[in-house]
Amino acid sequence: MKLLVIDTSTGSCSVALMENGRLSAEWLVNPETTGSTPLLRSLDLVLESAGVEIAAIDALGVTLGPGSFTGLRVGIATVKGLSLATGAPVAGFSSLAMLAMNLPFAAYPVCPMLDARKNEVYAALYRCGDLPETIFGDCVASPDDFLDHIREPTLFIGSGALRYRETITARLGGLAHFAPSGCHAPRASSGALLAADCIARGETIPAGKLVPAYIRPSEAEIARMKKEAELGHGLSPSR
Amino acid sequence: MKLLVIDTSTGSCSVALMENGRLSAEWLVNPETTGSTPLLRSLDLVLESAGVEIAAIDALGVTLGPGSFTGLRVGIATVKGLSLATGAPVAGFSSLAMLAMNLPFAAYPVCPMLDARKNEVYAALYRCGDLPETIFGDCVASPDDFLDHIREPTLFIGSGALRYRETITARLGGLAHFAPSGCHAPRASSGALLAADCIARGETIPAGKLVPAYIRPSEAEIARMKKEAELGHGLSPSR
Repeated sequence: MKLLVIDTSTGSCSVALMENGRLSAEWLVNPETTGSTPLLRSLDLVLESAGVEIAAIDALGVTLGPGSFTGLRVGIATVKGLSLATGAPVAGFSSLAMLAMNLPFAAYPVCPMLDARKNEVYAALYRCGDLPETIFGDCVASPDDFLDHIREPTLFIGSGALRYRETITARLGGLAHFAPSGCHAPRASSGALLAADCIARGETIPAGKLVPAYIRPSEAEIARMKKEAELGHGLSPSR
Repeated sequence: MKLLVIDTSTGSCSVALMENGRLSAEWLVNPETTGSTPLLRSLDLVLESAGVEIAAIDALGVTLGPGSFTGLRVGIATVKGLSLATGAPVAGFSSLAMLAMNLPFAAYPVCPMLDARKNEVYAALYRCGDLPETIFGDCVASPDDFLDHIREPTLFIGSGALRYRETITARLGGLAHFAPSGCHAPRASSGALLAADCIARGETIPAGKLVPAYIRPSEAEIARMKKEAELGHGLSPSR
């Protein structure tokens, strides 16, 4: 089975091709400046290097979220297009579970953290074997609020963990361990483990039903809700 | 610091660029057919994507071995050339330690295994934290002989572990765990952790002194030794 997996859930871009459970090629670019993820070029590169045509892909995988709203939409829209064109089924997965799987068989629970801006992080807690087992599901919270859940030695990973490293260490002391440098970037090949598991369980998503898992409403949604609330207030004072 | 790391120790090819401890770009291609590792194209790709000129590289890293004799020579010769041209110092590291570092903070000791042909493997045993700690150093042995050293739950990784998976499971039963599929390919970013550590400790190697760590003699060396022994025998029967 040829499985093509895309991740653009953060400022970085990663594409991996697995053939019969074996990683054929992977590309990862993690630019300082977000928004310039050359996804289509990366796709071409991976497919061309492996000598695989897009029409030969049996299944697609993509991160649903949480992460950069724009990044998620770019990845999902691309995978929708590829699925509609090729008929390949799509498996969607959590960006945090994917990040945790950079540390398979970790000695401690793994806490992936992505910077969610507004002094918050997207975070979760997983026990990682050859697949992640959820201890605490994906959420958005202030680092302090999330750290309230942590009472045992824990491995932190991801851009949020790096950004709030001092806060984490101050709160948890010796309980806090950090993934080695170079492990914090999301990898499509880690996502491929999750996608392959979804596919094996028959849990694919029709392209038309793929939606991002933002976890919190976007700025546009917040603005719309505010506007609707104001309008509603104006139109119907009794509410 | 800009650190460029190359691995061509097996049939696969990987290039990673770390900037100040952060992975900027990584490329990995793992072709079914060995020997066609497009190393220079991969180097161009990684540098170009990160917007970094080769002259701006502060240090280089390369796998010294064990592995494919040709693969090792390709990687080392390339790094020698880059070092001579740029003046960047070189850190060399073990391909097995690099492979083990695909599983940082692993719950069990990690046994990286590469297929060494002739029914042998290159293998070692490490305890992996944020760096690998050697339990049993790099060697070449039959899988059975190497497995004699293993008495506790162990995580197997690498092409040799996949090739001899049945032998390993038959010998060790429930003690044998295998890295998830997709984790078995050598990654230059895992090598970068080792190279950065060498550089921090001042343990770089002058380009002229870089030599592959084959562990066992090459076929050419074996043939030469045989020939010399025969000649020696012919010339001096009293030996």
